[in-house]
Amino acid sequence: MEILSTPAAMTAWSQRARSGGMTVGLVPTMGFLHDGHLSLMRQLRSRVDRLVVSIYVNPLQFGPSEDLSSYPRDREGDLAKCASVGVDAVFVPEDLYPDGFSTLVSVNGLTEHLCGASRPGHFDGVCTVVARLFGVVRPDEAVFGEKDFQQLMVIRRMVEDLALPVRVLPGALMRDPDGLAMSSRNTYLSAEDRARALSIHRALGAMQAAEAAGERRVSALRSLGRAALDVDRLDYLEVVDALTLAPVDRVDGPARVAIAAWVGRPRLIDNMPLGPSLRWI
Amino acid sequence: MEILSTPAAMTAWSQRARSGGMTVGLVPTMGFLHDGHLSLMRQLRSRVDRLVVSIYVNPLQFGPSEDLSSYPRDREGDLAKCASVGVDAVFVPEDLYPDGFSTLVSVNGLTEHLCGASRPGHFDGVCTVVARLFGVVRPDEAVFGEKDFQQLMVIRRMVEDLALPVRVLPGALMRDPDGLAMSSRNTYLSAEDRARALSIHRALGAMQAAEAAGERRVSALRSLGRAALDVDRLDYLEVVDALTLAPVDRVDGPARVAIAAWVGRPRLIDNMPLGPSLRWI
Repeated sequence: MEILSTPAAMTAWSQRARSGGMTVGLVPTMGFLHDGHLSLMRQLRSRVDRLVVSIYVNPLQFGPSEDLSSYPRDREGDLAKCASVGVDAVFVPEDLYPDGFSTLVSVNGLTEHLCGASRPGHFDGVCTVVARLFGVVRPDEAVFGEKDFQQLMVIRRMVEDLALPVRVLPGALMRDPDGLAMSSRNTYLSAEDRARALSIHRALGAMQAAEAAGERRVSALRSLGRAALDVDRLDYLEVVDALTLAPVDRVDGPARVAIAAWVGRPRLIDNMPLGPSLRWI
Repeated sequence: MEILSTPAAMTAWSQRARSGGMTVGLVPTMGFLHDGHLSLMRQLRSRVDRLVVSIYVNPLQFGPSEDLSSYPRDREGDLAKCASVGVDAVFVPEDLYPDGFSTLVSVNGLTEHLCGASRPGHFDGVCTVVARLFGVVRPDEAVFGEKDFQQLMVIRRMVEDLALPVRVLPGALMRDPDGLAMSSRNTYLSAEDRARALSIHRALGAMQAAEAAGERRVSALRSLGRAALDVDRLDYLEVVDALTLAPVDRVDGPARVAIAAWVGRPRLIDNMPLGPSLRWI
């Protein structure tokens, strides 16, 4: 497994692979890898000749009061995990951005809702880093997990709009056995907070079950969800159209219920599908 | 010469060329082609196997009070001119952007000055359309004329920042025999206005000559330039650092003098180098 620490080395490595007729896949991460990340890697492993994982805690996507400086890191553990699933190259740039970097990529519309509303600038940072990673790595395919459902939809929009030569695949949201959505930020949870954090999963599950049983009214579903929650502060609990991410009043087509809430120290997010399945194109 | 009218057809054409081992060059234009455009095409013709010219009047780069609806067009004349310099494919999309398009690419810093200051949003529109054209056409090389010097520098910045796989080359600014910088918008000039528009070229020339004779003080150079101008309204006359485009007080390194002014109906722009030459990398 190769460790590449500069954009130039990464591009050259990828270029060599592609000029040898091989396809390249990318799983972009911020490190502190868990089984959710490994699931994305395994998914892409079987589809491409050369699998790249990038590990970069991107300052652009953190707000001034967010947890950039304390974001958890574990370089050695991450490399061992990558090796265990057959990753070919790990891209760990110290400086991802060139001197004088001054470009911003943003997606409107989709980012007005959910995390886009409560984390101003977050998705500009995400789009910008992903556009640059795509430029540096030049993958044929990349996977983004459904845990960050809005991020997945925003990246797919950007790729279509800029006609970028990469196929963006959705990756399954992975849960611990108790139902908690896997997240690097779970490491911040005390045992007690972790027990309360499970209420997010239960709230989503209750809403999904009620919808499956015929309740289409979002007001009723939301009441059900809110009643199940035991969190310190709810950021949002929204039922949105699965494609536009705009809030809906009734579940009449593919929809998504998404929750963001603080439990103890971390802000956690989770989501589940409601209504008919989304057909990924 | 092929005429391609959809992004999908353009991408497929370019894909075929590249998978046959050929290099592809792109000259992006808004049509109403003149010898300045043809000079860019000839420059690239000798460097690439397949030469593409795009013709698209991009709404995103026009302000609400600007001349989008009246921008001059001449489809038949443009195609004949492209054929005359050996263009392989002309990309004339009716709809360049996909349904639901909502991505914006912007470059900060460089766009605070000159036209960026007087045309808010203009360079966001330019960056966005060029990023999409690069995605659709996937050229190995592209040329942007020094007539739009700020645009050239902004596009080079975007390409470096997003690590786009295209080399951006500067193309020489072309002038009519009387010195007027070639521009599609010159067609708006009456004979009388055209004579007055030549004062822009004379002002630039006087400043360049004075600098070459040893005058480094920008205040003195600007006075000289302003005295030579006979325009209806001056937008700006600035001496800027050739790399950062920030105004300078003295010409101590590669610099550029740039003028934007209204003469009769059109707003015209022109520029010349001052001081040591810029070394293009």
